[in-house]
Amino acid sequence: MDHPFSTDTSLTSEHFRAQMSDEDKSFADEIEQLLSDHRSQSKTVLKEAHLSELYDRFNTTEMSDESGTLSNYASILKHDILPHVVNVGSEYCVGHMTSALPRFQAEISRLVSLLNQNVVKIETSRVLTLIERQSIGMLHRLAFSQSDDFYAQHLFEPSSVLGVVTSGGTLSNITALWMARKRLGPDELDGNEVIVASELAHYSFRKAASLLGLKRDPIKVPAHSNGAINLVALEETLTELREAGDRVLAVVGIAGTTETGAVDDLKAMAAIAKRHNTHFHVDGAWGGALLLSNTHRNLLDGLELADTFSICGHKQLYLPQGISILLCRDPSLGAGIRTQAKYQARPKSLDLGMHSAEGSRPAMSLHLHAAFHVLGRRGYEELIDTSIEKARIFAELINAHPAFELLAKPKTNLIVYRYLPEQYRTNTPAGLSEHIDRVNTWLQERQFLEGNSLISRTTLSSSEPYGRGSVVALRAVLANPRTTAKTLQSVLEEQVMLGDMAP
Amino acid sequence: MDHPFSTDTSLTSEHFRAQMSDEDKSFADEIEQLLSDHRSQSKTVLKEAHLSELYDRFNTTEMSDESGTLSNYASILKHDILPHVVNVGSEYCVGHMTSALPRFQAEISRLVSLLNQNVVKIETSRVLTLIERQSIGMLHRLAFSQSDDFYAQHLFEPSSVLGVVTSGGTLSNITALWMARKRLGPDELDGNEVIVASELAHYSFRKAASLLGLKRDPIKVPAHSNGAINLVALEETLTELREAGDRVLAVVGIAGTTETGAVDDLKAMAAIAKRHNTHFHVDGAWGGALLLSNTHRNLLDGLELADTFSICGHKQLYLPQGISILLCRDPSLGAGIRTQAKYQARPKSLDLGMHSAEGSRPAMSLHLHAAFHVLGRRGYEELIDTSIEKARIFAELINAHPAFELLAKPKTNLIVYRYLPEQYRTNTPAGLSEHIDRVNTWLQERQFLEGNSLISRTTLSSSEPYGRGSVVALRAVLANPRTTAKTLQSVLEEQVMLGDMAP
Repeated sequence: MDHPFSTDTSLTSEHFRAQMSDEDKSFADEIEQLLSDHRSQSKTVLKEAHLSELYDRFNTTEMSDESGTLSNYASILKHDILPHVVNVGSEYCVGHMTSALPRFQAEISRLVSLLNQNVVKIETSRVLTLIERQSIGMLHRLAFSQSDDFYAQHLFEPSSVLGVVTSGGTLSNITALWMARKRLGPDELDGNEVIVASELAHYSFRKAASLLGLKRDPIKVPAHSNGAINLVALEETLTELREAGDRVLAVVGIAGTTETGAVDDLKAMAAIAKRHNTHFHVDGAWGGALLLSNTHRNLLDGLELADTFSICGHKQLYLPQGISILLCRDPSLGAGIRTQAKYQARPKSLDLGMHSAEGSRPAMSLHLHAAFHVLGRRGYEELIDTSIEKARIFAELINAHPAFELLAKPKTNLIVYRYLPEQYRTNTPAGLSEHIDRVNTWLQERQFLEGNSLISRTTLSSSEPYGRGSVVALRAVLANPRTTAKTLQSVLEEQVMLGDMAP
Repeated sequence: MDHPFSTDTSLTSEHFRAQMSDEDKSFADEIEQLLSDHRSQSKTVLKEAHLSELYDRFNTTEMSDESGTLSNYASILKHDILPHVVNVGSEYCVGHMTSALPRFQAEISRLVSLLNQNVVKIETSRVLTLIERQSIGMLHRLAFSQSDDFYAQHLFEPSSVLGVVTSGGTLSNITALWMARKRLGPDELDGNEVIVASELAHYSFRKAASLLGLKRDPIKVPAHSNGAINLVALEETLTELREAGDRVLAVVGIAGTTETGAVDDLKAMAAIAKRHNTHFHVDGAWGGALLLSNTHRNLLDGLELADTFSICGHKQLYLPQGISILLCRDPSLGAGIRTQAKYQARPKSLDLGMHSAEGSRPAMSLHLHAAFHVLGRRGYEELIDTSIEKARIFAELINAHPAFELLAKPKTNLIVYRYLPEQYRTNTPAGLSEHIDRVNTWLQERQFLEGNSLISRTTLSSSEPYGRGSVVALRAVLANPRTTAKTLQSVLEEQVMLGDMAP
């Protein structure tokens, strides 16, 4: 018969061949060179360019009809894109929860991409489905320490859900609350259910409340000056809600707040949640990784009592963006969100789309599998212990420096502080605190644009436990393995210099 | 001062260095070799192994304390993993919406991974935020053809949402319905709202209903024998719901059903939705890419009237798993789901986390940007036109073959058919139709395990429009650029051979 189409004649098909063409090879080499050059830069922003200047380069919405060469695209990457990303791998990038990655993970990304497995169903993922379940099982054991029999029974049992891999921490938290909601009978779903969490809870819980159709934002419970939830206030809040006839969907504990890295008293919260007969979720998106450190895991005591627990791979597990894990203590909890179809997610299949808010998704758990093999638990322990030690040292540097004020004693590896030279430390005249806030805002933005180092910024509001009213704070995240004490010294020195220039 | 930690002494830090170590280089070379070997295989499953045999290799839930070498991990990839994935790039893999990818996208994945930009906020993504907004803008223009002034006004306006990049089609659909729900006043949110869609709608809409806390699954409207929604039945359903006092959250049109690739009459549906004053969402996860073909885009007439529209990058845009785009005709619609915080997603920022169910996420839109530059619109047109031509030819092959029955005339590039040798074609005695279903089920599973080719399977239920009662169907997805007419001939020949062996 005729072959009216062939893989070898068309314009596009050359990109789909099994073997790399010479053009593909050159492109791969160019990308490697670009990455290598980029990673050896210490600048955090390579070219100072206000966003508005960049708009002009990316404002076309007409798609080109024509195809282009890979060489031309490499040139676009080199000239228009790479100089204008944030160099999160720089040792001076200590502002966000995004840092340098282990080099080998880029090769795993290449593999995940080109193998293009879709873990929504076993027929397009096979062994990667098993690897996902195994990786979840390892984290489950780390968190919940169940018996060998338990794991033998549930690891590959289709109806058991030890956890769910999601694209990120927000989706993990949303999935946890979705499961929690399904524990309530359908008659109790009228949108009047509430989530209860510390005032320092991540904004993903507000997203969750909105998405789940709850009529109210999460109820905020005050925190202590160390950043941990006030347990007495929690108990009172739950009692008041019950007396008012409101149904509590879940109590949320935080293992590593976004602003200061503080950890709630999870053991006490678990007991309170149990007494009030409500779901207990722990948001360990950031701090859950402390489980891997024998030195620091005691900070998470009580986590093993949580019903659900989120931990992000792309934060302190040093995986690329795009992987978070929600763990479920009870493997039957996931049944509440089970969704099946005739073409996939069929009953008794291992299709992962059956127990997930997502459908098609990449085999990101291979990154976790690789990291467990290459770094091992002790590798992670070393990374975490070092980060916490760096935070302690940075706090000391700040405390020792007359131009800075430490705003909270660090419990883990986040630091909030502000620029406050001595002339501002006397009794605050009217308008001075606003001035200090403006200077700190300006300082953070200026430092970002200079591109030598990157610290982030937040506002510790008056309802928060720092006892200073509303305060603009500089925020450092000490998780970048390339950062040294000397780096941190330089960051402060630059801030002093910029602070002197502040308008 | 002291340097109590350094990047160059510890066990783990070597993985974080700017330059590749010799070990990293060897690993990269090994991965390239593995990928190259893998892609040159035509087998769809390289080693026949029942999943149960694989369980034993991945059943440990004890994490190793020790670190391992990259060379050892490459060996695990080679021996335990790659032989047991599904070779979705094989020309014989025509069963699912996952296929070969353009080779250069693997290099983009490497770049996205190692640059590790987090598009949740501009401070960890900068130019990638602009690229995401630009890519969305291009797709928006393709779908909704607004004026130059419109795009000049909205493309980089923080409060305007032309669309949202999500991790997948399910999340795009969920986000659309979340926005639709927010169009209703808070008083109307009590869980009694309903989604209305064809009986052939994807199961993500049941997930959406569950997640949003709706008390009912989507209301199913019958479809015609061509797979398109029955418009009279839609009108009746909406009228009945209104008369019963039910609030319709959204009417969903389908551009490419999961089972047969059929497209609803979007123009007529838009008019009906407008008349009933309800949100009109189009699920173009699969078929939305037809927009890029001047030959076939007329199938999507009326799409420009949709309020929201989902299209998956990792389907017919040939991007790696993990990117779907929800487009919003009206840029103010996204305001309903806006969520802000003090440390990011601040008002007036371009932080993408503000208008998304996700938070931290990778810069996947760089894949889209690269594809638009390298393939161009015409490259996509060629891919799509060829796929539809392949489907036409496959349907002809099936129709011409005495052992097969075509179950629906293809509108795009999905084919449903079944093995039905002549001896079964006479009037069906009792029990024979169950036997035919069993044979087709066995055939599909057997063919998967043999690993020479991969076709998927679904059940066309009795409520569906094929007029045959419930039927087990073989399902082919013609989207793999490496597939030729000869490939398709072989797939059928193997099915005939296996059919003869059926128990």
